[in-house]
Amino acid sequence: MNYKMVAYLLGRILLIMAVLMCLPFLIASFMQEETWLGFLIAIVAQLALGLACSARKPKNTDFYAKEGFVIVALVWVLTSLFGALPFYLSGEIPSYIDAFFETVSGFTTTGASILNDIESLSYSTLFWRSFTHWIGGMGVLVFVLAVLPKSHASQSIHLMRAEVPGPQVGKLVSRMRGTARILYGIYIMMTLLEVVCLKAAGLPWFDSILNAFSTAGTGGFSIKNASIAAYNSAAVDYIITIFMLLFGINFTLFYLILTGHALQAIKSEELRWYGCIVGGATLIITLNIMPQYNGFWDAFRYAFFQVGSIITTTGFITADFAKWPDLSQTVLMLLLFMGACAGSTGGGFKISRVIILIKSSFRELRQQIRPRAVTTLTLEGRAIEDKTVYGVLSYLSIYIVVFVVSHLLVSLDQVTYLTGFSAVATCLNNVGPGLDAVGPVENFSHFSNFSKIILSVDMLAGRLELLPILTLLSPMTWRRR
Amino acid sequence: MNYKMVAYLLGRILLIMAVLMCLPFLIASFMQEETWLGFLIAIVAQLALGLACSARKPKNTDFYAKEGFVIVALVWVLTSLFGALPFYLSGEIPSYIDAFFETVSGFTTTGASILNDIESLSYSTLFWRSFTHWIGGMGVLVFVLAVLPKSHASQSIHLMRAEVPGPQVGKLVSRMRGTARILYGIYIMMTLLEVVCLKAAGLPWFDSILNAFSTAGTGGFSIKNASIAAYNSAAVDYIITIFMLLFGINFTLFYLILTGHALQAIKSEELRWYGCIVGGATLIITLNIMPQYNGFWDAFRYAFFQVGSIITTTGFITADFAKWPDLSQTVLMLLLFMGACAGSTGGGFKISRVIILIKSSFRELRQQIRPRAVTTLTLEGRAIEDKTVYGVLSYLSIYIVVFVVSHLLVSLDQVTYLTGFSAVATCLNNVGPGLDAVGPVENFSHFSNFSKIILSVDMLAGRLELLPILTLLSPMTWRRR
Repeated sequence: MNYKMVAYLLGRILLIMAVLMCLPFLIASFMQEETWLGFLIAIVAQLALGLACSARKPKNTDFYAKEGFVIVALVWVLTSLFGALPFYLSGEIPSYIDAFFETVSGFTTTGASILNDIESLSYSTLFWRSFTHWIGGMGVLVFVLAVLPKSHASQSIHLMRAEVPGPQVGKLVSRMRGTARILYGIYIMMTLLEVVCLKAAGLPWFDSILNAFSTAGTGGFSIKNASIAAYNSAAVDYIITIFMLLFGINFTLFYLILTGHALQAIKSEELRWYGCIVGGATLIITLNIMPQYNGFWDAFRYAFFQVGSIITTTGFITADFAKWPDLSQTVLMLLLFMGACAGSTGGGFKISRVIILIKSSFRELRQQIRPRAVTTLTLEGRAIEDKTVYGVLSYLSIYIVVFVVSHLLVSLDQVTYLTGFSAVATCLNNVGPGLDAVGPVENFSHFSNFSKIILSVDMLAGRLELLPILTLLSPMTWRRR
Repeated sequence: MNYKMVAYLLGRILLIMAVLMCLPFLIASFMQEETWLGFLIAIVAQLALGLACSARKPKNTDFYAKEGFVIVALVWVLTSLFGALPFYLSGEIPSYIDAFFETVSGFTTTGASILNDIESLSYSTLFWRSFTHWIGGMGVLVFVLAVLPKSHASQSIHLMRAEVPGPQVGKLVSRMRGTARILYGIYIMMTLLEVVCLKAAGLPWFDSILNAFSTAGTGGFSIKNASIAAYNSAAVDYIITIFMLLFGINFTLFYLILTGHALQAIKSEELRWYGCIVGGATLIITLNIMPQYNGFWDAFRYAFFQVGSIITTTGFITADFAKWPDLSQTVLMLLLFMGACAGSTGGGFKISRVIILIKSSFRELRQQIRPRAVTTLTLEGRAIEDKTVYGVLSYLSIYIVVFVVSHLLVSLDQVTYLTGFSAVATCLNNVGPGLDAVGPVENFSHFSNFSKIILSVDMLAGRLELLPILTLLSPMTWRRR
């Protein structure tokens, strides 16, 4: 383990986080809120540690997969530990564990909250809370790569692999490396576009910006206790639905469109599956909940929003879906596990993995019936290597192991089976709301500190697609050979 | 598809089923119960169809994997259709769909019931109900193999592969083929031993025999409304617990012990995991439920019973575990999915598959941390081929696809999320009781006919480890090349 290089990169990132935290600090100062001190302390702490770590550039800058995982995992843990300071120091979240949970939920774009009354928070705290979604959505390190000097390029693949979601990262990265800046550009432009749309729909600037942050990161933190339902506006609902769905699309597709390959983008197999799943789920739920609403279009509005919110793992709420019929809840829970497209800001298992899973299941069945038939799996028109299929299946089995262990630990709290199950599911998939006591109108405040830590680890594990956090926690990583 | 051979084998098995059904018919006649007519009609119908199908032996007796799957699937569907007749014709189960569900639940050793009042049934019906467990436990076809002439031996592997549970059947079969009779011998001897033990513990002969049938098949049908709790006897509880656990062990281990290789049997890796899981789960649940009981040993009695009942997928009840704390329920639901050892009469995912899953997850993690390290997975001291690991992972993904589709279809009924989820889980794993509206003190009568059919398919799919039933349902099987 190249400890010096790990420390050096961590230090650099802490410095960037200190700079980013200046924004809420300025807001606090400008609005004369008492929270300014908390932000200042956090900024100074990050600056101090960041400078100490990155003061001397190590001679040996080599690092490999293991270091990549450890760096990424540590970055996310450290930024969450520091990011929680303003919440805690201002007294707006009196418990540090709660503040940590809230920050992890922010950075991992989960959107699960321990707050009973969001509207009582100060502007600067609300801003920081939603801003963490926006930072976490694209990934801290993708940002770093965009500004990193070229000399580190060859090793950056180890960082990208650990932070960018999806089953076929390897191939994506080579294309993405050179385009990290462009991807960030798209992210910023789309966020701005949403801000303008929401403002045009009648929201105040502050609400427009913060909700756009939450949408862009597919996070789900809202600044109202009733989430998006508070605005009670069909226009706002539709704008946010469409932007949630857009941010759930693989960003390389936007890049393709920008570079004049729109046709190629539209032909994307994952995109078509995504469209079909969203369309199908919306139709089923609309028909299923119609008796509870005023006709088809009223039901459609809420169904479409909730489908978009759950499949992109955003977690905004416009209706208490816990009161919807069972079929709708089952469909939503399925979408919750499924998640959005690879290479998007969304979490979950990712559509492309689901496609590979379903295709390999059918191939297996086909081969049992006709053992001599040779069949190749394809995705996006190209053959999928057996290694990729095996990787997806392994990911699934690791996912199940993590899920089961977390569920057992969380059920030490005296919560119902459905509460424990859906709390782990919603955190591991970075969604936000679950069912029962963590349902759409509930929150996570009633869990014990122990469970909050377990669920925080789940959120981090889910956002970083398991391996970095497991590497950090594995004794093997720290054993000398 | 060699249709003539399929029909011939099906005919032979129907004849055997007709003979087996003479037992409840004799009981009905002896006890002068009105159910005799229903049994007689079913016997005659099976004899007639069986003779018609198997009258002429086909010239071409060749068949392959596809035919093997189709035969096994059809055998189980047909015997369930005929087996349901006595329930329906006697009027004791007025709906034929309900009778079919109950019979499938019997043959697949699930033990899920649609009956609200079991104690009002006649003796002959109760006998037939429990007897289906005993027949289904060991497998109809294993029995056939035991009595089949040697000439079919080479093809019997296709039947065995489809009916005997576990991930590594191929290797097992060559050993098992010659020993099918011995395995049935062990099955009968152990059942008799349990009958004697239960009689000695004070149960009437009738209760002893029928409960032994249910235990041996790891089924779970009881002849009391309160299941085994009705006897309120610690001795009975412990006897049944121990026999449930014994019937959850790979039968080849008993064979090894009988042939003087006891040491080799005890060294079995799967057995040791099984022992550790049962021990660990019992301890956790005992400590967890102690406040609800009179001290450690009272809690131990109920925890041990329920752990044995669920992990072996029997489904007997001595306590309403839906009222236990969440941790206990979570552990039980985990055991429900896990199931017993491969090659036992139990259902579920099978311990050996769980071992392979966990080991391959750890290998995957290890390889990410140390990409150059070469690691081999071992089970029972031998290296597991990559093909086997891939097979287990594929099985998992097919299992999930079947689970999700079933869950969606069942949730068309207006049941709660937990009811739908646990109903599918308990049927697909051949356990019996679930949670919420299919909890320990509930039954399946409230489901629609549609859901009952879906759950019946799940029970069959689970008992036959998915592929035979999927082959039967796949259009590809019936398409001409």
